[in-house]
Amino acid sequence: MADLAAALSKADSNLSSSLDRLSELVRIKSISTDPAFAAECRRAAEWLVDSLTGLGFAASARDTEGHPMVVAHHDGPDGAPHVLFYGHYDVQPVDPLELWTSDPFDPSIKELSPGRKVITGRGTSDDKGQLLTFVEACRAYKETNGELPCRVTILFEGEEESGSKSLQPFLEAHAEELKADLAMVCDTGMWDAQTPAISVSLRGLTGEEVTIKAASRDLHSGHYGGNAANPIHILSRILGEMHDENGRVTIPHFYDGVYETPDNIKAMWERLGAPKNFLEDVGLSVPSGEKDRTILERAWARPTAEVNGITGGYTGEGFKTVIAAEASAKVSFRLVGDQDPYAVRENFRAFVKERLPADCSAEFAEHGTSGSIQLSYDSPALGKAAAVLEEEWEKPTAIIGMGGSIPIVGDFQSKLGMDSLLVGFALEDDCIHSPNEKYDVRSFHKGIRSWVRIMDALAH
Amino acid sequence: MADLAAALSKADSNLSSSLDRLSELVRIKSISTDPAFAAECRRAAEWLVDSLTGLGFAASARDTEGHPMVVAHHDGPDGAPHVLFYGHYDVQPVDPLELWTSDPFDPSIKELSPGRKVITGRGTSDDKGQLLTFVEACRAYKETNGELPCRVTILFEGEEESGSKSLQPFLEAHAEELKADLAMVCDTGMWDAQTPAISVSLRGLTGEEVTIKAASRDLHSGHYGGNAANPIHILSRILGEMHDENGRVTIPHFYDGVYETPDNIKAMWERLGAPKNFLEDVGLSVPSGEKDRTILERAWARPTAEVNGITGGYTGEGFKTVIAAEASAKVSFRLVGDQDPYAVRENFRAFVKERLPADCSAEFAEHGTSGSIQLSYDSPALGKAAAVLEEEWEKPTAIIGMGGSIPIVGDFQSKLGMDSLLVGFALEDDCIHSPNEKYDVRSFHKGIRSWVRIMDALAH
Repeated sequence: MADLAAALSKADSNLSSSLDRLSELVRIKSISTDPAFAAECRRAAEWLVDSLTGLGFAASARDTEGHPMVVAHHDGPDGAPHVLFYGHYDVQPVDPLELWTSDPFDPSIKELSPGRKVITGRGTSDDKGQLLTFVEACRAYKETNGELPCRVTILFEGEEESGSKSLQPFLEAHAEELKADLAMVCDTGMWDAQTPAISVSLRGLTGEEVTIKAASRDLHSGHYGGNAANPIHILSRILGEMHDENGRVTIPHFYDGVYETPDNIKAMWERLGAPKNFLEDVGLSVPSGEKDRTILERAWARPTAEVNGITGGYTGEGFKTVIAAEASAKVSFRLVGDQDPYAVRENFRAFVKERLPADCSAEFAEHGTSGSIQLSYDSPALGKAAAVLEEEWEKPTAIIGMGGSIPIVGDFQSKLGMDSLLVGFALEDDCIHSPNEKYDVRSFHKGIRSWVRIMDALAH
Repeated sequence: MADLAAALSKADSNLSSSLDRLSELVRIKSISTDPAFAAECRRAAEWLVDSLTGLGFAASARDTEGHPMVVAHHDGPDGAPHVLFYGHYDVQPVDPLELWTSDPFDPSIKELSPGRKVITGRGTSDDKGQLLTFVEACRAYKETNGELPCRVTILFEGEEESGSKSLQPFLEAHAEELKADLAMVCDTGMWDAQTPAISVSLRGLTGEEVTIKAASRDLHSGHYGGNAANPIHILSRILGEMHDENGRVTIPHFYDGVYETPDNIKAMWERLGAPKNFLEDVGLSVPSGEKDRTILERAWARPTAEVNGITGGYTGEGFKTVIAAEASAKVSFRLVGDQDPYAVRENFRAFVKERLPADCSAEFAEHGTSGSIQLSYDSPALGKAAAVLEEEWEKPTAIIGMGGSIPIVGDFQSKLGMDSLLVGFALEDDCIHSPNEKYDVRSFHKGIRSWVRIMDALAH
């Protein structure tokens, strides 16, 4: 019988050396988007290979067209589940450097407020600190129990911050090797500093660009105004008609495949309310969008149509009395449930075309599609993870959604046929992608303990 | 008794030397917008002063902050009307030079089609050729009758193509000297190559810029989509509501001060139809705008609201899933009759403000106002000019409007209390402001004869 208490205790006593290892990894400047740091990316991959090898993993860095993938395997007890843990070792660039209060690649422990210690540096949260919570959990478990509770495969990517170009081909080429019973992804956050969270839904996306064309050239509004079709008017009217007075999208069939959230989850979301100062922090006070929905439903479980950009005619300084030949808009649809991203595209295009007056045409360009992810609200893995997270954090686990997408989760589902368990310990104020990134020492410490518990629970 | 026939005959026999004089003036590179050509502007002014002095005018070039004004006076018979003739000697730049088939400042006579001769060069039409029709008319009249039929004051501006900055202060400072019974402006065109035209209405303009603001910064559409107000949606909806399904502007009180065009003028416009290939030439086929109005009513006698530019969010290459903090549009209103340009501005602003949802604000910027000009359809001067133009061109004179504005006409009305007679001989294909500008020799010749007739008619 595995000794969970010993493993947790080991995680505590290891904390200081765990933080040292995180600092070592953070010192490697693995900025994936800048070719000047390619050697640093490789060094980070090799550091992880060494580290995992030291823990008894069969680990190697695999070359790709871009930065290497780290793949590592560790056996588990007979009959134990097989989990694939995903993280990424590459980091965002650090400019503007002058806004950092300390060197982004020389991490240090600071006390933000009495008792609240953080470790500073690029990647401490996203994602080096988060991925090490799992590695250090394996270490604590192995050092006390001599084995891991599950069979574990690890995949660390080095291109997450620069488009993950090698990921899909790599998954396809190594599907047999990487396929497991469950994927675990540690690249998300807590609900708040006290409340652990598991993300079970991610919205999908259809990106579209529409250009309305009328006259063959820009026209003088004095000469032609009153007689020539103005594509800005037409585009405005069409976009203005895309939502009704209740905030619902009016495109026919848009809500096909959208399901109601289970009542118990809705009730949980009502209790959660909204992230602290969610709107206030950005100068807003009243939720927009669909009436009669809570903020969290609107953010996670309802689809949207948003115009992300619009342009037409003269937009420089001053004024020009022109009737533009064309006007265009970029529109994104966030998708949920079983909405078909391709059907959404076709329905949007039909919606536009039906509204075109004489002499006007519409041209469309695609800007990507990704289906939404809806993991089961009542899978055993979710139930076990939620229960042990509550034990660790002494607060009920929030079962949440995400408004955006994490492409890896879709890839795991489509390429490897695996669901993912999305557990992370980042906080809203971690400043990921920004100057002064940090990770709470408490997130790191209790994150390690959380993975010890989750692995243990999945095995039983 | 003045000998009109002799004057007209003199205009004919002078034609060759008149064209030589036009060529001389065109050779002077009086591009007003480019400081490198300031001396050439002065040279053009002095050339005109010499020319007018040679005709017996008391002429001088007056310094301004910009290029000189040419002012010239010639007495008329006792009791004769006093007319102020306006033109401009400055020209547009000539780039792109490589598109000209001959030197823009070395005019030549070319035969465009059998019997259709034109003189080529920058300013041949706009406005050196047009203003010389009047000067050469004075010459023919003076050389045959020893005097002019009217008292004549001439004002030639050198900054029309670069904003006329000195014009209003000059009119104010010299109001007594310049005020006459009637202004005559030769900077407009024929209805078509066969049909003379007098413009009696010019639309006014109110220029506005509106910026809708929501969140304090750009937001991620995954995180905030569904909850945060999107200013592009709000702007689109407001602009989309600015016209009803019949093309009428929906802003309350917008049509205050708009009058119906007299039936006889409407009937004339119905006969005229529309400028040849007016829509077809710009790739359109169906007139947009107010239903149940003719093309010419919509172009000349009806007000419009046009969005001239719109921008918001991400408008570069590719895609960015952002909810913009703000979106803005430039909007112009073409005005007719007694529409008050300031009331139009206020009513538009109220229209926008009434439609703002919570958390959104609107900021406005002014981009100028000019009232519309509506000259009397039945003034004696108009009647006389229309009658003699018909004699000269052997086609009934078209009484027309202009969709745009000619600021000088408003200035003459507001600063000097004078109506204007707008007669010009330019043709649609003169390529003013473009490469290969030309003026038909017939326009020049019959234009000179037209002014001989008009001056003579006004005196009787």
